[in-house]
Amino acid sequence: MITRYDFGAPVSTGAAVLNITPSHGDIPHFQLEETGEGLRLSCPLEEDTCLFGLGETVWGINKRGHIYRAWNTDETTHTEDKKSLYSAHNFLIVSSPSGAFGIFVDDPGEVIFDLGATSLKRMTIDCHKDVTLYIIEGGSCVEICREFRELTGPSYVPPYWAFGYIQSRWGYAGEEDVSRVTRLHRENHIPLDGICLDIDYMDRFRDFTLNPKTVPDLKKMVDKARKDRVHIIPIIDAGIPANPDDATYLSGIENDTFVKEENGEVFRAAVWPGLSCFPDFLSPRASAWFGDRYRPLLEAGIDGFWNDMNEPSLFYSAKGIRKAWESLRQLNEENIDTDGNWRMHQAAGSLANSMEDYRSFYHDMNGTRVNHERVHNLYGFGMTRASREGFDRFDGSKRYLLFSRSSYIGAHRYGGMWMGDNCAWWSHIKLNLQMLPGLNMCGFLYCGADIGGFGKDTTPDLLLRWLQLGIFTPLMRNHTSIGTRQQEIYQFECMDEMRNMVRLRYALIPYLYSEYMKAVQSSGMLFRPLAFDSPDDPMARHTEDQLMLGGECMIAPVYEPNAAGRTVYVPERMLVLRMRSPEDMDAELLEKGTHFVRCALGEVLLFLREGCAIPFAEPTESTKEARKAPVHMMGWPFSKPYLLYLDDGVSYAPGWTTLLDGTGEDGYAL
Amino acid sequence: MITRYDFGAPVSTGAAVLNITPSHGDIPHFQLEETGEGLRLSCPLEEDTCLFGLGETVWGINKRGHIYRAWNTDETTHTEDKKSLYSAHNFLIVSSPSGAFGIFVDDPGEVIFDLGATSLKRMTIDCHKDVTLYIIEGGSCVEICREFRELTGPSYVPPYWAFGYIQSRWGYAGEEDVSRVTRLHRENHIPLDGICLDIDYMDRFRDFTLNPKTVPDLKKMVDKARKDRVHIIPIIDAGIPANPDDATYLSGIENDTFVKEENGEVFRAAVWPGLSCFPDFLSPRASAWFGDRYRPLLEAGIDGFWNDMNEPSLFYSAKGIRKAWESLRQLNEENIDTDGNWRMHQAAGSLANSMEDYRSFYHDMNGTRVNHERVHNLYGFGMTRASREGFDRFDGSKRYLLFSRSSYIGAHRYGGMWMGDNCAWWSHIKLNLQMLPGLNMCGFLYCGADIGGFGKDTTPDLLLRWLQLGIFTPLMRNHTSIGTRQQEIYQFECMDEMRNMVRLRYALIPYLYSEYMKAVQSSGMLFRPLAFDSPDDPMARHTEDQLMLGGECMIAPVYEPNAAGRTVYVPERMLVLRMRSPEDMDAELLEKGTHFVRCALGEVLLFLREGCAIPFAEPTESTKEARKAPVHMMGWPFSKPYLLYLDDGVSYAPGWTTLLDGTGEDGYAL
Repeated sequence: MITRYDFGAPVSTGAAVLNITPSHGDIPHFQLEETGEGLRLSCPLEEDTCLFGLGETVWGINKRGHIYRAWNTDETTHTEDKKSLYSAHNFLIVSSPSGAFGIFVDDPGEVIFDLGATSLKRMTIDCHKDVTLYIIEGGSCVEICREFRELTGPSYVPPYWAFGYIQSRWGYAGEEDVSRVTRLHRENHIPLDGICLDIDYMDRFRDFTLNPKTVPDLKKMVDKARKDRVHIIPIIDAGIPANPDDATYLSGIENDTFVKEENGEVFRAAVWPGLSCFPDFLSPRASAWFGDRYRPLLEAGIDGFWNDMNEPSLFYSAKGIRKAWESLRQLNEENIDTDGNWRMHQAAGSLANSMEDYRSFYHDMNGTRVNHERVHNLYGFGMTRASREGFDRFDGSKRYLLFSRSSYIGAHRYGGMWMGDNCAWWSHIKLNLQMLPGLNMCGFLYCGADIGGFGKDTTPDLLLRWLQLGIFTPLMRNHTSIGTRQQEIYQFECMDEMRNMVRLRYALIPYLYSEYMKAVQSSGMLFRPLAFDSPDDPMARHTEDQLMLGGECMIAPVYEPNAAGRTVYVPERMLVLRMRSPEDMDAELLEKGTHFVRCALGEVLLFLREGCAIPFAEPTESTKEARKAPVHMMGWPFSKPYLLYLDDGVSYAPGWTTLLDGTGEDGYAL
Repeated sequence: MITRYDFGAPVSTGAAVLNITPSHGDIPHFQLEETGEGLRLSCPLEEDTCLFGLGETVWGINKRGHIYRAWNTDETTHTEDKKSLYSAHNFLIVSSPSGAFGIFVDDPGEVIFDLGATSLKRMTIDCHKDVTLYIIEGGSCVEICREFRELTGPSYVPPYWAFGYIQSRWGYAGEEDVSRVTRLHRENHIPLDGICLDIDYMDRFRDFTLNPKTVPDLKKMVDKARKDRVHIIPIIDAGIPANPDDATYLSGIENDTFVKEENGEVFRAAVWPGLSCFPDFLSPRASAWFGDRYRPLLEAGIDGFWNDMNEPSLFYSAKGIRKAWESLRQLNEENIDTDGNWRMHQAAGSLANSMEDYRSFYHDMNGTRVNHERVHNLYGFGMTRASREGFDRFDGSKRYLLFSRSSYIGAHRYGGMWMGDNCAWWSHIKLNLQMLPGLNMCGFLYCGADIGGFGKDTTPDLLLRWLQLGIFTPLMRNHTSIGTRQQEIYQFECMDEMRNMVRLRYALIPYLYSEYMKAVQSSGMLFRPLAFDSPDDPMARHTEDQLMLGGECMIAPVYEPNAAGRTVYVPERMLVLRMRSPEDMDAELLEKGTHFVRCALGEVLLFLREGCAIPFAEPTESTKEARKAPVHMMGWPFSKPYLLYLDDGVSYAPGWTTLLDGTGEDGYAL
């Protein structure tokens, strides 16, 4: 049961799709307190209470023990102390042995969650005085989650090809890179469905322009890639260069679509193209204008985009850098001392993403002027919605790939997301896994992390182990930063093992796609904590490095270097498939309990629940041929028919479905 | 068997104490190659080869899969990608199922170890053309390690009280802090033996001065603390302020003891006191001068020091900041663009610890002028030796506590070390554990990490879990940075559980001290990888989060939040003690294999080998009363007598010893 509580005059965020009448009773579970700045909710924590949710954050599956700040931030280093990442997903489930309830803090500004960090026995939530709170009670975590998902609407459905393998690198600039990367994947028989182009494909990093040197003919490049069964996925940033010779800028000025300072001047801050203006994604009019900017790219045949820098990230504002410069001027070189040195560091360090800058501009929300600080966390959501609605206006019958860096709950209806700029760290394989259930709870089903790591140099074993998680995430993208080690699979000595992991992905797409569609239609989760399926099992409640996948599976990737396997908690009788390739695997029966399971560097583990089998296709080198590939069932002998969703081409319909049954004899069943 | 190989004209580092005649045969195991810059050794890696050693570095117990750069660095963020920390410990054991060998690269300059990171199947070591290499062959890892330790000499022995609990915080400035912290520990019956004073106890951060406000009377403060059974441990930094009104500076100039630039001018770079000069710790004359500076502090009764900033850390050089300033001047505020912003960041960011600065000064090694870059990694070692020799000149009959941030192999004979500026991260509990065996292999037995974390805010459960590892490390210090959450045990709601952990430490001191002394005398290790004790057990070889402790024990701390226990690999039949306090524990018998072992937040696990018991004392609130506390044996019924080392007060003798035997009936034996 969902109850809504309104305090003051809440901002309407667009997160919810159900219009629930606010209740005027006391809010259950929480003590309410007006602080100087806003509202504080607090609630005692029992010893065994687990906290699930919050979407894209650091920390474990159980969020207890840390302080989180809902404040969308271009955070380049995802260490465990970080309070904010790129998105704000303020939905939390409090699960005690005595029962569970959910809370959604629908506040688009800063919200602080202190989940047993200051005191072990207490959680507090600090939000604004004007806020809408939803409390969801009754039933299990799964049921609470489903109710919340019905409140916030159905998840985005990407095209079928978006489940294919995508190769990316900051530095890919156009035709030459696309054909080389395509050719080397095809020559080495590494399956591939998409290539991302980062900011270098543009003319001086300006949105909706093309680098004449690297993209002389967009349509030709797109058509050629399509012949090679590859989709090109360009990046689009939030900022529009404040240059009188930039067409988008001129159109924005003419149509009055940029956010403004108090005095009515257009707000300017530097991002990749230099000083830029920022579309007002909270204004339907400005959003429609921005969505239509994609049209030339759509006309050229582009059918996938990634939206970036939409926290929004600000390198510095025109005002900010002048101020920094003044403070530096005051330093006299002759008596620069330690303080002077700190002052120089501070001047440089305080420029990016400063609160002063965020406070200095305003949005037009249907005629009301709202300071950005109050609605900061809606900006990325607005960009996602604006672009998606632009695509729909262009061709409402087609599915487009769209994923964004920044988001707020509600954006899950319009697109997917990736987990931002992680690092080539083993610990980020685990973080990648631990973020998945929280994101699924908040409706973000189409997501994944930069496989191999964005920052720092990867190693062959790190990439191979990371692929062994990546083959299960809907977005499977290998992406890395400019200046790091070459990270395409064909660069490595263990290419054969890596190729086999991607081939396993393609064999699993019929299963992953089917379970994805079921999660969309049932407001369910593709990835669940073990605690959701086995709420009364204390071991399951504390398992932090395994996930239930779909209705039939559990995954437990190896995320440590030099490991010969890993310890796995098996919550019920399961069959573990130790897979080296679609053609080479062995199966072992495991009883409920803690087991050390061997898993060599070239192997990936997949656990099947008793009596379950999953569709498994003959792998192809792109999803284009997937329809022709035979699918058989793999796993236990199974009785109940399996509902398989097939590639539906372009329609928005849930996809053609077919029922498979069998004894699993054609698979790897025991 | 140790073989020495000299190439060119190696720098004599003082790491080795045995003078082995260089061999002229081919160096075994490695392929040698002259590169432009120096010498490259490379060696294939079998699939099962483990690499142990390298002392203070990030990564696991098995060092394979990462690139390490031996270059002592003031590194403030110990993430897994870091190549350098504060010390250089170039001893590595290559252990394959087919056998093991050790290599010590006795090169005081930059050395790069690529241990299977670029290629899975190959390790390379890049060092200078002028270098001494030692290859140790024959026998097990334990035997190879013992031979290496005999080559490099006996480990430092601290005073008995140095095994007590030490409380520290950047910000403790003198009398007031010392009495408050002491009082609150005593009032709350939290055992305590030492309090560290950080840079604020000095007058404007100047070595060998006192802050008149906070330390009006040093001797009075020291005597009062001693009455409270507390030792005061002041910090000493490497840099001496270049101020004509600073006595140490004037004495250094007069005695010509500072490192110089090429033109003979004294090198100046800023550290805490501002622009400073740096004693030439590679010159015996200058070292003797520096060692004698401690005398006034020793005369006041100080008997413990921590030496810091001795990589040496440089905030910026006089030259460097002028250059940075010039590059900033060239920026015209009117057209600062994105590049200008980067240039400002770069100017600020390139100032600290720059290679250009390290290359710009020289040492006087017995009359030969040597550029710092060539011998960089010896600087901290030199400071440790200089201060220790100063203590010995003052009173050769007394043991002093001394630990340093930076070191090189050889420094282990003169003092201990701490693991530098870690963070309040759960992952750093594990890193702390993983560093211990590598440090022990290199002779550093007296060591520990900042318990609770130096950077960032700790949480009650993080500190409590960290204490559960810290009670086993010889240096047990709670230390944190200025500006972070108060981290003294009495600040937390779970003070009772934390106090009981410290009380357990005091109950264990007789065992830890005895095993420490045995390790010193036998050139053995206090902490060993499981692989060292069970070389033929593949599970033991891959265990990365447990250690053998002394002759009788294994430790397996919990290092994850919200855990109800952890998985433990038990390599042989063991008794696990689940300890809540010295008076409250239970024991469980575990057979060889993988077990999930319950361990609630207030519990610590200690594993005892079959037939082993350990001395266990009635805890006191300081080591001062420890002699009067009865010791009984705890564990299995045991037959062979246990050799117990008791507090020997001040003499350098290994300490009085006594033989304990018994049936363990008075303990917690099954």
